[in-house]
Order: sequence, then structure tokens, then C-alpha cells
Amino acid sequence: MTTAPVRTDLYAQVQHFYAHQMQALDGGRFEEYAATFTPDGSFQHSPGAEPAVGRAGIVHELVEFHKRFEGDPVQRRHWFNHIALEPQPDGSVRSTVYALVVTVRPGGKPEIAPSCVVHDVLEVDGEGVLLRSRLVTHDQMF
Amino acid sequence: MTTAPVRTDLYAQVQHFYAHQMQALDGGRFEEYAATFTPDGSFQHSPGAEPAVGRAGIVHELVEFHKRFEGDPVQRRHWFNHIALEPQPDGSVRSTVYALVVTVRPGGKPEIAPSCVVHDVLEVDGEGVLLRSRLVTHDQMF
Amino acid sequence: MTTAPVRTDLYAQVQHFYAHQMQALDGGRFEEYAATFTPDGSFQHSPGAEPAVGRAGIVHELVEFHKRFEGDPVQRRHWFNHIALEPQPDGSVRSTVYALVVTVRPGGKPEIAPSCVVHDVLEVDGEGVLLRSRLVTHDQMF
Repeated sequence: MTTAPVRTDLYAQVQHFYAHQMQALDGGRFEEYAATFTPDGSFQHSPGAEPAVGRAGIVHELVEFHKRFEGDPVQRRHWFNHIALEPQPDGSVRSTVYALVVTVRPGGKPEIAPSCVVHDVLEVDGEGVLLRSRLVTHDQMF
Repeated sequence: MTTAPVRTDLYAQVQHFYAHQMQALDGGRFEEYAATFTPDGSFQHSPGAEPAVGRAGIVHELVEFHKRFEGDPVQRRHWFNHIALEPQPDGSVRSTVYALVVTVRPGGKPEIAPSCVVHDVLEVDGEGVLLRSRLVTHDQMF
Repeated sequence: MTTAPVRTDLYAQVQHFYAHQMQALDGGRFEEYAATFTPDGSFQHSPGAEPAVGRAGIVHELVEFHKRFEGDPVQRRHWFNHIALEPQPDGSVRSTVYALVVTVRPGGKPEIAPSCVVHDVLEVDGEGVLLRSRLVTHDQMF
């Protein structure tokens, strides 16, 4: 088996898209994060959760989620690795990516958990990349 | 010093090759992993071990290695970072890569160990990438 | 929002530059690391520190810093993730990157700390990449 060659420009665009997207999320710029989805995009951050749909819905979900950290200052960093792309017949691109969440509290050491896999469907054109859907699975649930 | 420019398409192909290869390994798809080696490829997962040679030999080695996890369900994820390529005079490409092994057990937190360096020799052509040899060194042994 | 497409070749060059640069640093090849900076480049490895300026100054800073590990053999690995590039009007490129420092002692498990963000200004031409300035911020200081 050899992995089918990936379009070089596609691979770089997707990597760069993720870099900006996740820095927006970790920087608390939720509207910027939501704008990386298509207008009807869906975001399901854990298998049991109801997916948030649409940009306003995604912002709402993130605001709600982060209320648990009120009074508990925390810096989170989402790390990605091994971006595996599979172009789909409809022109979209499936992207399967490892993720680790790094959480830092003032003066503390990073806690690195959970380990996840991100399952994305991307829409890519000359203008850039948008996320049609994202489902995150968690490795400790098996 | 400036690092010699890398062929852009080569760099993307190698990154993508690793993404699919390691997702195959961590998914327990050992035949798919072995098929990323050349037919006479060798795989030495630690310096003291005897290298496994050939695709059947590599599958055998992986099956044997994973017997230690029977009755101990575990999800492992091999993370890679800093892929440094050095084209060789014979047309192959040396690739030196950082690796961390993330191990997750049901309900548990990820354990991140060991830290390794992967020393690969790659064969690359228009068809894709194949691995001629892989030697993994471990950082805690020094 | 879509992230502006990045020049594919630029993205691969920068990734590859970082791979070689950080393997040089972690390998103790400080002159090779310093040579990845412009002749008047500056390197500030933590916000409170005085920046080291110029290649000789950077080598000096690294030699001084590593004296604290004399008699304490240690292998450090600097991991990078999410390289976000922003071309600047003067032709330079801002690069904002997540970093984790992995520290391994003989026989031990990796310690992964601190979590940092690397703020680089890169000069890129047909010859390759050079670093004009690097400032590293630490996540636990907030």
C-alpha cells in the first residue's frame, strides 16, 4: 500500500486553517471560531452531546461550556497531530486528526487530557477552507 | 545557516504518509502499517530489539508485541513532531522525527511516554512514499 | 471568515525550518541554532528575560542557560504545533506557534512543561528562512 498522494496545496491549506482556527478557539474568540464553519455547519464536541448547529448555535455552545471555568482562570491549548485527509466523491474532504487538550492554570504545570480524535468534513475552494461538520470522540471512552 | 529549501510537495507527502501510517498502526491495522514499508523494509522499534524484516515479519512483530496488552484494553496514539528531511545521494530521503506515545485506558487519563526519535529512510516516487527502514531510539536511555 | 490561503511553499518551508532548528537546539548544537537567526536577530526565551541579540549573544545565552543542567543529564525536546502565519507589509512573516517542552532524565518518564507560545518574525526569501526575532510567552504566567 502507498497512501494516495495528497494535493500539496490542499494539505498546507488545511494545516494552516487548523492553526488559525484553534488559536481562535483557545484565545476565546468564539465568533471567529464559529465563522470557520459553513453557515449550516455542525459541531459536536463529544459523542454524547447534542451537536450545535449554525454559527450562532456554536458560539452559544462555547459560551455555555466555558461558564464552568468562571472563577477558575485557565488557559487551554488544543494540540493536533497526524492530519489524514480523504477526498470524498461530493468534493468535500474528510479529515481525521489526533487531538490532545493542554490545560494550564496560573503557576501550575500543564495537564494533558483528554486524548481525542477529531472527525471533520471540510469544504475547500479557492477562497479557503470551511468546516461542514466536526465530531470529537474521546479515547478514554471505550 | 539557512536550512536548504525542501521540495514543497515532498514535505506534504511525507507528513500525509505519516498521518495515515500511524493512524493505521494505532487502529490495529497492522497489515496496512506493514504495507507502508518496502517489501524488504526493516522495522526496529527499540535499539536493543532485533529488527523485523519484510512485511510479514513486521506484522508478526506487531502481533507479538500487542499480546502484552491482552486483557488490558488500551488505546495508543503515536504523536510525531518536527519532521526533518535530508535527501540522500541515492535518491532516498532520511527523515528524523520526534515521537511521543500517548496511552489511554478506559476512564483514565493519557499517559505520555516514552519520548522517542524516529529515524526513517524513505523511498519517494510519483506513486507515493514507502519506508525502507525505521529505527526508533528512546530518550530515557542515555 | 475563511483564513486567507497561505502560500503553500512558504508553509512547508517554515515547518521544515522549525524541524531542523529545534532539532539543532535540542541536540545542543547552539551555533547551528543561532545561525537560524539574522545577524542582528533577537531571542527572548521568556518575557522577563533580557533578549539575547546577535548570533554570538544567542550562543552565549544558551551556554549560560544550560549550565543549570551540569551534573543533571537531561534530554529536552521542544514540540511545536499550530503554526499560524501572517505576512507583514514589510515582507516579513509573523509566526505564532504553540510549544511544549518535553524533558527526559535517564530512566525517567517525560515531564511535559511548560506550555508556551512562540512569537516569531521570519525573513523568507528564495534562499530559505531566517529568524529576525523570537519571543516566548509562558502559559502559566497569567
